[in-house]
Amino acid sequence: MAQEHDRGAAPDLVERRVERGQRRGDRYVRIVRPRQFTRRGPGHLVATEGILAPRTPLGRLADRVRRGLFGERIATEREIHERIGVFKGLAVFASDNISSSAYATEEIMRVLVLAGAGALLLTMPITIVIVAVLAIVVASYQQTIRAYPNGGGSYIVASDNLGPVAGLTAAGALLTDYVLTVSVSIAAGVAALTSIAPGLFEHRVLLGVAFVVLLGIGNLRGIRESATIFSIPTYVYLVSIFGLLAFGLYRLLTGDLPAYEPPAGWRPVEGAEALGLLLILRAFASGSVALTGTEAVSNGVPAFKPPEWKHAQLVLILMGVFFGSIFLGMSLLAGRIGILPDPSEQQTVVSQLTAVLVGDGSPYHYLVQVATALLLVLAANTAFADFPRLSSILARDGFMPRQFAYRGDRLAFSIGIVVLAVLAIVLILAFEGSVTNLIPLYTVGVFVAFTLSQAGMVRHWWKLRHDEAGWRTRAAFNGVGALATGTVAIIVGIAKFALGAWMVLVLIPVLIAVMWAIQRHYRTVHDALTLERADAPLRVIAPRVVVPVSRFDRAALHALSFARSISRDVVAVHVSDNAEEAAAMRERWDRWGGAIPLAIVESPYRVLIAPLLAYLDALDRQDPGRTTTVVLSEFVPRHLWEYPLHNQSALRLKLRLFFRPNTAVVDVPYHFDAAYSPD
Amino acid sequence: MAQEHDRGAAPDLVERRVERGQRRGDRYVRIVRPRQFTRRGPGHLVATEGILAPRTPLGRLADRVRRGLFGERIATEREIHERIGVFKGLAVFASDNISSSAYATEEIMRVLVLAGAGALLLTMPITIVIVAVLAIVVASYQQTIRAYPNGGGSYIVASDNLGPVAGLTAAGALLTDYVLTVSVSIAAGVAALTSIAPGLFEHRVLLGVAFVVLLGIGNLRGIRESATIFSIPTYVYLVSIFGLLAFGLYRLLTGDLPAYEPPAGWRPVEGAEALGLLLILRAFASGSVALTGTEAVSNGVPAFKPPEWKHAQLVLILMGVFFGSIFLGMSLLAGRIGILPDPSEQQTVVSQLTAVLVGDGSPYHYLVQVATALLLVLAANTAFADFPRLSSILARDGFMPRQFAYRGDRLAFSIGIVVLAVLAIVLILAFEGSVTNLIPLYTVGVFVAFTLSQAGMVRHWWKLRHDEAGWRTRAAFNGVGALATGTVAIIVGIAKFALGAWMVLVLIPVLIAVMWAIQRHYRTVHDALTLERADAPLRVIAPRVVVPVSRFDRAALHALSFARSISRDVVAVHVSDNAEEAAAMRERWDRWGGAIPLAIVESPYRVLIAPLLAYLDALDRQDPGRTTTVVLSEFVPRHLWEYPLHNQSALRLKLRLFFRPNTAVVDVPYHFDAAYSPD
Repeated sequence: MAQEHDRGAAPDLVERRVERGQRRGDRYVRIVRPRQFTRRGPGHLVATEGILAPRTPLGRLADRVRRGLFGERIATEREIHERIGVFKGLAVFASDNISSSAYATEEIMRVLVLAGAGALLLTMPITIVIVAVLAIVVASYQQTIRAYPNGGGSYIVASDNLGPVAGLTAAGALLTDYVLTVSVSIAAGVAALTSIAPGLFEHRVLLGVAFVVLLGIGNLRGIRESATIFSIPTYVYLVSIFGLLAFGLYRLLTGDLPAYEPPAGWRPVEGAEALGLLLILRAFASGSVALTGTEAVSNGVPAFKPPEWKHAQLVLILMGVFFGSIFLGMSLLAGRIGILPDPSEQQTVVSQLTAVLVGDGSPYHYLVQVATALLLVLAANTAFADFPRLSSILARDGFMPRQFAYRGDRLAFSIGIVVLAVLAIVLILAFEGSVTNLIPLYTVGVFVAFTLSQAGMVRHWWKLRHDEAGWRTRAAFNGVGALATGTVAIIVGIAKFALGAWMVLVLIPVLIAVMWAIQRHYRTVHDALTLERADAPLRVIAPRVVVPVSRFDRAALHALSFARSISRDVVAVHVSDNAEEAAAMRERWDRWGGAIPLAIVESPYRVLIAPLLAYLDALDRQDPGRTTTVVLSEFVPRHLWEYPLHNQSALRLKLRLFFRPNTAVVDVPYHFDAAYSPD
Repeated sequence: MAQEHDRGAAPDLVERRVERGQRRGDRYVRIVRPRQFTRRGPGHLVATEGILAPRTPLGRLADRVRRGLFGERIATEREIHERIGVFKGLAVFASDNISSSAYATEEIMRVLVLAGAGALLLTMPITIVIVAVLAIVVASYQQTIRAYPNGGGSYIVASDNLGPVAGLTAAGALLTDYVLTVSVSIAAGVAALTSIAPGLFEHRVLLGVAFVVLLGIGNLRGIRESATIFSIPTYVYLVSIFGLLAFGLYRLLTGDLPAYEPPAGWRPVEGAEALGLLLILRAFASGSVALTGTEAVSNGVPAFKPPEWKHAQLVLILMGVFFGSIFLGMSLLAGRIGILPDPSEQQTVVSQLTAVLVGDGSPYHYLVQVATALLLVLAANTAFADFPRLSSILARDGFMPRQFAYRGDRLAFSIGIVVLAVLAIVLILAFEGSVTNLIPLYTVGVFVAFTLSQAGMVRHWWKLRHDEAGWRTRAAFNGVGALATGTVAIIVGIAKFALGAWMVLVLIPVLIAVMWAIQRHYRTVHDALTLERADAPLRVIAPRVVVPVSRFDRAALHALSFARSISRDVVAVHVSDNAEEAAAMRERWDRWGGAIPLAIVESPYRVLIAPLLAYLDALDRQDPGRTTTVVLSEFVPRHLWEYPLHNQSALRLKLRLFFRPNTAVVDVPYHFDAAYSPD
């Protein structure tokens, strides 16, 4: 006869039982301190990096690969040392904006040329208007940076001052635009490359995808490394482009400017489209892509070294000056030289301009193209810094799933980075890597966010009117900004509606609705789970335990032992599709003679789970409201490849039980190596 | 101060406790009988179909769709009524073999024509040799069917008589071949269709995949429906092809046979390859595809109505007669008419022959082609019957994962069907749906299995030499069969080695090794888990319980209550990446004043799981060998879409804990609707 070692009530533990409110010091008696922890106070431990050390050879290899790809771990306290100054800040936060000078002129020309080559004369005036708007935006954002030193993204400014709907509108617009920033910048970068290496043109989609993946990996490494990588191309671009423009202006002033001779077949049909107001507005809308990226600086204020706001303001001004000069110079020279955009998109306008000025295929031509390509590909990094940051703020406010607020061990918001990369790749695939196809979706979101942010700032100054002396001037600055960007938003929306802006204008409300629903869900759950009484009591009721048993073996005995250890009310259930097998099981069970009753359930339809669930339902009816605990014995094999050979039924059962009310599931893994000695 | 309702030891249950060996009648006291069950004996219930009835509107809809696609459920006892007779048996088990008459002649000609049109004269002699081999195989298999009425597949015959290695070799060869049967038959069926509808040619891969999917669904419905569907095309094919051949023979005898005029550009280069022995052997090897499918009948004996073996023998003979006549007639007419195979594979030889005899595009031409296509596509069904059946036998013997032995509620081996369909689709994609590309992989496996099976039968008769009077004759029959098929196996292996047969010759040993490893694993596990003592005792030890708590709310209290109900040794652990938040948690906990101690673990690297695991390790060191139970509170939202918003950490934790020795994991789902009332 078997011996049952019944320590069920564990008398030694009962003695140590801590009564509520009494012997409070004993509370921490049972809290052990693991070796890799330091003690900060009673029952309060701090983990060290030691706990993350891999223990198996394979784990050490994986860890080394991870560190190689993503860098060393960074403790939260060290975050301030990861901050950046003006030099790196310009590279990180302004590269998006500055890089758009590589395609802004071209996108204006591509629209104007539809009305014939003569219409290209309008390129320069449109450029001047856009640069003027940029100046207004930069001036307006100076105030935002000062007022929101913790990051004055449009979402925060708009929700702070205009309420949650405005905030979510700005957030939806920005999230959309960050994804587009990645797709457009990468597509333009690839175009800069294919301008000097036409053989790559047919692989442009693949190249774009590869660049996005590289950027994603780089960003998972964290912010400082990003800055180091990204400063180089930004400054190479600035130097080489200013050199080119200076050379061009010198030749213009000396009357030595060459004329562009387009290949046969490129000449556009004169007046294929009338040079109407809509066409001019479309050209303006296409060129206003130049303003994207301005948000990045005000959003990223906390990433600067202290004093954060001063560094950020300086970066914003430098950005505006650099970008404006390049844009104006580029449009001027392209007009004077008489560049015609390549209808097949194989060569960019910058490449044509450079080729005419310094010679096609000359080393300087290559330098400009490679620098442009690198800057553009890396400019997408601005979005890789901002999308996860905004997502994490939204997640903290409950508008996005909580995972987005979780920082990886490199201080990067890992999930945001991955989601951004995936979405950008989808866009590149869907629009076949063409900048001109993607542009109409871009910018409308940016200007919606701009407008809400500036309008929010006006409200902000109005609220501070009693404390802030110069509030009128400040409000005026932002008011002009709101007016200008609002006008542009409407122009872009109308001019590009049919070309693709409608997708964004549909997507933004959808995003708002989804974020709203997520927040409502989290709030409802939070409220429903909140305990009203601080001293809510525990409900201690011995559970009713069911142990499905397929074969009476060590693993089953292990599970039955566990079940019996947690409750005296245990029943084993054996589901069989075969009467003979069922009889053998009964016989075996009776021979065992343990104190646990066995129910045999024959299932003529060979299903395993349904009869078990029906049995649990019957138990529920017998004693309603009591928790049913199902103890599952899971076999853990020694090797991973062996896993699919086991536990398939347990897995399916767990999935079904998860949704069953009042049911707890216990996994009792039986490890192959764990020799269960029956005595 | 909170009240703790401590029913931990549940005194009412203690009284009802069943002592071992005493009051045995009470054992079944607690075994309830659910409404949808019938009672067969004490503690022995039988489930009715009622337990499978869906309970929600969505469930009812899903159930209706499932029944529509897969048919009504079939109880195991009803299996005998699903058996088939000769008429349907010929359709189900012989369609594979008979359908190969649609491409056997063509594949011989495609090889011969490489040596010029003159070499096609050898088509007829090669056909005659192959039909002779078929006659030997049919005669030989008559004995197998008689000797193995429960299904005499090569695997069973070879393992029974020649040992497990021979058995597994046969099994590996057959599994490979069943997959190829599906791919080749479907590809040939699609070719028959594109012969009359050339517009479909560019979609042949897609069409092939669609047919495989349809077949998979059909087979998940179970065997009888299959038979009904499959009888029609088989008999339409037989009637229309015999009609065609009769018409052709009549015209031949009356000297009225037309001559074939191939389009310009088709004429092959005379003597591009020398008509050497290897080419003739390759032609023979290609044509011997005609013998595939013979195995099916002997494997499927138990699917016939009783007397199973008689029906099976009759089907095998009919199959040989029908197939042989068609093959001979086809080769004869094709040679006399002077058909040249279409180099682009757009038209089949059968289609060319029919077009010449009855007129291109005539209704009869369409009838033959559609019947051929349907028969070929449906012939793949033989493999859909046999692959899952063989897999289930292998799974029962422990050579394949157990899931393959599990029968769905339509008595079909669901997983085997799905796996076969997936593999066949992969092959169709990899070989771009071309019969000629696939053929070299085919047949070598069949003949390996044939040879092993016949050799096994020789051994079988030798073992029965004292009981069976005519054992010498029987052994001689099978010996000739083994010799013939063995020779063909060697010819096919050599002639087609470089063309693709090497893949199969590599794959078969790999499959053997994998199956062997799986069986060894199952046996090791089974042995290790077997209890040596019939009366092995339970080990009842109160578990040490750890409850990770992220927020002190109703869900946490629910989990803590459960933990406290199963043991008095409970500790809550809160992992925090933020010192202030940790302090707030401590304050809240102290205010609660419950009897459970709280350990706070700060994690400066923001990781959640590693500190928890380190804490568990420390507990283990404190009291080694004792099971640690981790109680996880999982929030179950009301809607499925809300699920990704919760439990991400719990999920990751569970995965890690699963592989930790001596650790049980309890999921305590907290259902949103389950209002936990704190008193």
